This record gives sequence, C-alpha cells and structure tokens, in this order.
Amino acid sequence: MKTLEIHGSTGDSFIHVGETLRNLEKYIPSENMVLITDKNVKQFYENEFPPHPVITIDTGEKIKNLDTVRDIYEKLVTLGADRSTFIVGIGGGIVCDIAGFVASTYLRGVRFGFVSSTLLSQVDASVGGKNGVNFKNYKNMIGVFNQPEFVICDLNLLNTLPKKEILNGMAEIVKHGAIEDASLFEYLEKHSQKALALDIDVIGKLVYDSITIKAAIVNQDELEKGERRKLNFGHTFGHAFEKTSGVPHGEAVSAGMVAASQLSVKRGHLLAKDAERIETLLQKIGLPVRIQAEGKSILDALKKDKKRKGDRIYFVLLDEIGNAFVDQIPIKEIEAVIHYFS
Amino acid sequence: MKTLEIHGSTGDSFIHVGETLRNLEKYIPSENMVLITDKNVKQFYENEFPPHPVITIDTGEKIKNLDTVRDIYEKLVTLGADRSTFIVGIGGGIVCDIAGFVASTYLRGVRFGFVSSTLLSQVDASVGGKNGVNFKNYKNMIGVFNQPEFVICDLNLLNTLPKKEILNGMAEIVKHGAIEDASLFEYLEKHSQKALALDIDVIGKLVYDSITIKAAIVNQDELEKGERRKLNFGHTFGHAFEKTSGVPHGEAVSAGMVAASQLSVKRGHLLAKDAERIETLLQKIGLPVRIQAEGKSILDALKKDKKRKGDRIYFVLLDEIGNAFVDQIPIKEIEAVIHYFS
Repeated sequence: MKTLEIHGSTGDSFIHVGETLRNLEKYIPSENMVLITDKNVKQFYENEFPPHPVITIDTGEKIKNLDTVRDIYEKLVTLGADRSTFIVGIGGGIVCDIAGFVASTYLRGVRFGFVSSTLLSQVDASVGGKNGVNFKNYKNMIGVFNQPEFVICDLNLLNTLPKKEILNGMAEIVKHGAIEDASLFEYLEKHSQKALALDIDVIGKLVYDSITIKAAIVNQDELEKGERRKLNFGHTFGHAFEKTSGVPHGEAVSAGMVAASQLSVKRGHLLAKDAERIETLLQKIGLPVRIQAEGKSILDALKKDKKRKGDRIYFVLLDEIGNAFVDQIPIKEIEAVIHYFS
Repeated sequence: MKTLEIHGSTGDSFIHVGETLRNLEKYIPSENMVLITDKNVKQFYENEFPPHPVITIDTGEKIKNLDTVRDIYEKLVTLGADRSTFIVGIGGGIVCDIAGFVASTYLRGVRFGFVSSTLLSQVDASVGGKNGVNFKNYKNMIGVFNQPEFVICDLNLLNTLPKKEILNGMAEIVKHGAIEDASLFEYLEKHSQKALALDIDVIGKLVYDSITIKAAIVNQDELEKGERRKLNFGHTFGHAFEKTSGVPHGEAVSAGMVAASQLSVKRGHLLAKDAERIETLLQKIGLPVRIQAEGKSILDALKKDKKRKGDRIYFVLLDEIGNAFVDQIPIKEIEAVIHYFS
C-alpha cells in the first residue's frame, strides 16, 4: 500500500492506494459511522462492510440530484446522525460526489472519507475535493469544495467492474500522462493489455501515478483558477460529445483528447506524430477516437461550457506529450475545424 | 461608518456598521450581480437597490427550507448566473442564511455579501459565517460555514422594523454584554429607552460593540469547538422555549438568559443580585423573563438539543456579568430545577 497526501484549504486528505475495504475501520476516528453506497457495490461487497448503518442509493447519473441528497438527509436524521457521525461513501464517482456533498452540508459539515470502487473514481473523481450533484440539465451545478479525510483505493474492487467502466478510467489515465508525465504515457503504451487485464502491479502503478499527478496539480490550485484547468484536457470537446451523443464519459473524453491534440497540431504546438501516438494508444485500449455527432450541436454545447468567457473558450492544448498549457481560443476558430472532429 | 474585520478560514469578512444600502455598489467587485431579498424589504427599499436582477422570496421561518433554495438555484440558472456572479442577500437572518447557503453551493461557491436589515441579523446572524436552512423540524440542519465578503449594517433600515423585531435584536445585545462586556451591559442599563427609540448614536454603538464581541469570539473559534459556545448563553433553554411555546426567538432567549442566570446562581457561580440585574434590564426593555410552558415538554426539547452529549448538556453559565463559561451539566440536575424556569 502507498499513501499520498493532499493539502487542501479545508484540511488534509490521505489517499491510500492498494488498501482494502476490509481495513476501513482502521481509518475511522469515530464509533459513530454511517456508510453510503449504491445497489451494485452493496450487492458485491456488503460482506466486507464494517457493521454500521448503510444508506443505499440507486445507480446512474440520473440519481445524482437534490432529491437523492434530501433522501439521504432524511435517513441520517432517522438514524440520529449527529456532529460526531463520520460518513463514508463506498462506490464510484456518483456515490462519492453525493456522499461528500451530504457530509459537507449536514449539520454544517461532518467528517467524511471514501472507499473508491471504480477505476475512474480512483484516478479522478475521489481526488481533489470537488463534490456535488447535477441540477436540471447541468452537471455538478450544486456543490462545494471540501476534502475527504481519506480515500481508500481498493484495487480488488475493480474486478467486478464492467469493461466499459474500466475504459472510463483508462481514458483519464491517458490524460494524466498526456498533460504531465511522458514516462507514464510510455509505460501505458507498453503495458496497456496488462492494464486492461487488471494486472495488480500494473494497475496499482497507473492508479498511484495518476493520483500523484492530480494531487500535485490540486495542491497547487485547489479552486481551479489556473493550473488545475489542465485537467480539463479532452474535456471541453468531451463534455460536448457527451451531451450531444450520450456516449459514456470516458469515450467522450477519449475522442475529446484526439480532437484537442489535432487542434494543438493545427495551431502549430504539437507534432503530428505525437497526436498520432495519442490516437494509437487510445485505439489499442479500445476507446473511440471519433464520435458521430452533428457539428452544429457540438458547437452549441461548447458555447454553453462553464469555461467559456465571451466569444472565447478556455482550452487545454499540448506542446508535447507530457506538457499541456491553457489558451483562450476564439469559438470561431473551433467552428472552422469542427468537421474534422465529428 | 466603522468597519470590523473577521478572519475566517474561508476568507476575510468586513462588517461595515453605519454604511447604507445606497452605497452597496461600492463594495461589489463584479458587474454581474444578483440580489436576493424578501417581499417586505423589497416593498420598503426597492428604490435604493442598485439596478441588478432581484430574486424575491417570502418571509417567515417556514420558507427557510430546501424548496426555497431550489427555487433560487432555478432563478439563478434562468438569469444565466455564472462563476463571476456576485450574490448579495438584502434582509434579515432568514434572507442572509438562505442567500449565503445558495452562494456557497451554486457552482461550488460564488462570491457573496449581505446588507443586513434587522437588528437581530446586524448583531448576530450576519456575523460568523454560519448559513443554511431548516430541514423537517430541525433548525439550521443543512448548511455550511462560509464567510460573506462583507456585511453592510444599515442602521436606517431598522426604522421600518416592527417593535417585536427590535426586541429580538435587543435580547442578543443583552447577551453579548452579559457574557463578555460588563461596560456594554451598564451602557444598556442606562440607555435602554434611547436604544428602543432607535437613537442613531446609541443603536450604532450597541450594534458595533455587539459585533466586536461576536467577531472576537468567532475569530478565536470559527467552527464552534470551544469559545464560540459562549454565544449560546440563554439559547439552550431558549430553543426549548421556542419549540414548546412558539414564542419568537428573542423572547425565548430572554427567558432563557434569566433561567441560565438563575442556574448560575444555584450552582454558586453568580451573585443573586447580578441575576436580578439581568432580569431587570430585560424587563425594562420589554422582554419576557418567564415563558409559560410545561416542564416536561421543555425537558424533552432540551434532550434533543444539538449540544447534548450523552446524559449531559453543554451549558453556558455566568461567573459575573461580563464573564461566561461553558460547563457540562447533567440533565437530571436541570430536571430538578425546571419548575423554577417555566
């Protein structure tokens, strides 16, 4: 097991990679604990849960809303949860986002931690202190920044994940390599098949290195005012693809990274052969590099992006593999090349 | 105008006592502003509002809930509020508590400030970074700690308040004197009638001194782990009275302070003549010193207090006027004397 530290303005967070759910109780400073999980995780792993009350929610992005938050508040009241209650979210990004928001707002905030059960949440969602829920059609519209006290990344839990879920996480690992760590990118080029087979050493290294990169960026810029924007590489097009075609997050981000790489080439920053390496790696992993969607609807979605500023949009580009930067690109310029990416 | 500073973990807050609503725009760093107010304040003071969108909510404790929060989120979305939007709550404690919570959670937090329009919110609610709403029958169950960037305490706005509202604020001013500042207490003994007549010099001094005391305590203990508990003087019984008899907050706290003083005398901490001074001052102001309620229901309410810990309850007692301390008192001991207080 390896441990990483995040120093957030709301407190320190410890990420334990390779620790197991069975050891959860070692990390809880209170006898008074409530677990929040989803039906899937409960079905597979309930026997590994410590003996404390469990609040079980449904699965899927649709339940990530204020109604679910309210239901959980109600259950906490019924359970008599008070200021000494420690909340643990056990699940993927949706469970952790909701559990983190509930814990941050119940009685003006109680202590909380996560057991992260999906590859995507291990390498991405559970690190960084963002939490919250969707509102209407807007993703993560309501939430706060607040660090969990710990995140346990139990690699064994990945074994029951559907292939699609593994791919979602792989896309973010590719992203971390592309924006910040050329050697991680190379490692993945060599070991992608072992990674997909969930070889414990390979996946352990990938998770650990990914979190190291994300933790370093978050430590520099918790509130996403500069450096942290780099983590949006592939996500500007990605979110637009997700909205217009309904493909899963990882697939959308994969095609989004290809689009952002090609834009980096077109603007004279990235070598064409490096854009190709990115595309090749994603294909080898089994991720899509193009999304079928209409140019105009993608553009409309881009214009609604939170990162838009007037007629320009904050965009993450690459100089080379392992080196990203943020630029403001006129939406008109994207309009002119949109047909390449869809 | 006098300005006080609060240094919270979430940022600094400036309290401007004697500043006016008309000058609000001087304090807003963004062109993109949304005002949140209630029907009453809007009716009297809309002509003094700067020219920005206004979200108007109803009045009364009943609307301080998640439905109102959700309605405001919806209106913010409709208004196209983004991360650069600055939210200003203009009103009493209810408006500021709701506006602060909305601002703290919309897009994971946007900047916000308050114009405080009631005596109670000027001396109490708007200072200290607590915000949130009620949930089911529980007061302030959902919320966060987050400091507004500024609070404007416009003394002119007090002129349209009903007498009852003035009394609510006066009870908290008496509290601040009783727990921390004997000279403020004496000043109030001398000038209570001028205060009630809203003499601008007297009320200005009372508001400023009250905030100074609260700010000093909050600066020491933002998250209410020790020192800040003193601010609950009169509130343990007060909340129980409020719940069982439905009297307004200020009246309940007034009778709660009398009960807490008498308990301080019974336990050998406070001189009986000082308890009498407190009772006399409250009566002179026109606040009740006894609440008609059944001992058993008060006791039941006390047992549900957030500050209960097993069979004891954190209780604020007085050593002398101007000097409070916190003790854990067995609920049994309160049971034995409850008939004195109701």
